[in-house]
Amino acid sequence: MADTIRIIGIDPGLRRTGWAIVETLGNSLHFVAAGTVRSQDKADLASRLCQLHDGLAGILHAHMPHEAAVEATFVNKDAVATLKLGQARGIAMLVPARAGLPVAEYAPNAVKKAVIGVGHGDKRQIHMMVKVLMPKARFDSDDAADAIAIAICHAHNRKSAIARLALETQP
Amino acid sequence: MADTIRIIGIDPGLRRTGWAIVETLGNSLHFVAAGTVRSQDKADLASRLCQLHDGLAGILHAHMPHEAAVEATFVNKDAVATLKLGQARGIAMLVPARAGLPVAEYAPNAVKKAVIGVGHGDKRQIHMMVKVLMPKARFDSDDAADAIAIAICHAHNRKSAIARLALETQP
Repeated sequence: MADTIRIIGIDPGLRRTGWAIVETLGNSLHFVAAGTVRSQDKADLASRLCQLHDGLAGILHAHMPHEAAVEATFVNKDAVATLKLGQARGIAMLVPARAGLPVAEYAPNAVKKAVIGVGHGDKRQIHMMVKVLMPKARFDSDDAADAIAIAICHAHNRKSAIARLALETQP
Repeated sequence: MADTIRIIGIDPGLRRTGWAIVETLGNSLHFVAAGTVRSQDKADLASRLCQLHDGLAGILHAHMPHEAAVEATFVNKDAVATLKLGQARGIAMLVPARAGLPVAEYAPNAVKKAVIGVGHGDKRQIHMMVKVLMPKARFDSDDAADAIAIAICHAHNRKSAIARLALETQP
């Protein structure tokens, strides 16, 4: 008999990190919660990273997911923005990993393919499909909606993703 | 009377993160220890970030520094490399910040200016000057030598850097 697997999807960002908890049981998928961890614009970088860390650690503690999925960040042409995103993304991967969760990464087009059915599409289409696939989903930001899409993508791909991670972590 | 201040300098990198502990008392500067935290090339990204986290947390626990200084990473033209560096840098800033240390950032040319006397110069010149300024310094990698230079830079600039951080963290 299949067990319920609780997934956390994370869309990392220094200013706003979206998160979503969904449950998958066999072919069914249920929305549990979603939200946004924010860091203070005016705080120094180290303090902002602490705020993201503590926010995500609190979500993990409250919802106890089994597996994590993080968006493999779109690398844009602005190196300063890429560095900032990298810093936030480091925290977004560290927190679930330290809690013992396998952490899968998905490229934006894999997320789009899982949710829209094709590897391209804009934010609006993703949000519309999230509402179709999960009518009960509630989200307070674009980042939280993206995090739901990432969690759905992992629900569809988790078996192969987990097998791949297990191979990489072999000594 | 001045107190001895123990500084950790960190040169972040996903593969190798250099660290150095130095002590400053008035105008004198003493080498305490330096080394390199490595992550396993073949492990998945989340595990590698955990390895960096645990390595740095162990150094902090062993040496109990009062203040931290991290190199404000050179942003090169390779976005993938910048993203990797950003992820490692996020961890390098998070670990001392969570331990309650103020975390200052220094641009590479500020580090060069503090060590060589001018804002430019190559790695070899930095290493030579580190040995001149700190004859007892021992390091096992270029990254550890760079971390010593970062710690020296902070020793020279810490008063203004700490004042700046205090302003940023005001509510």
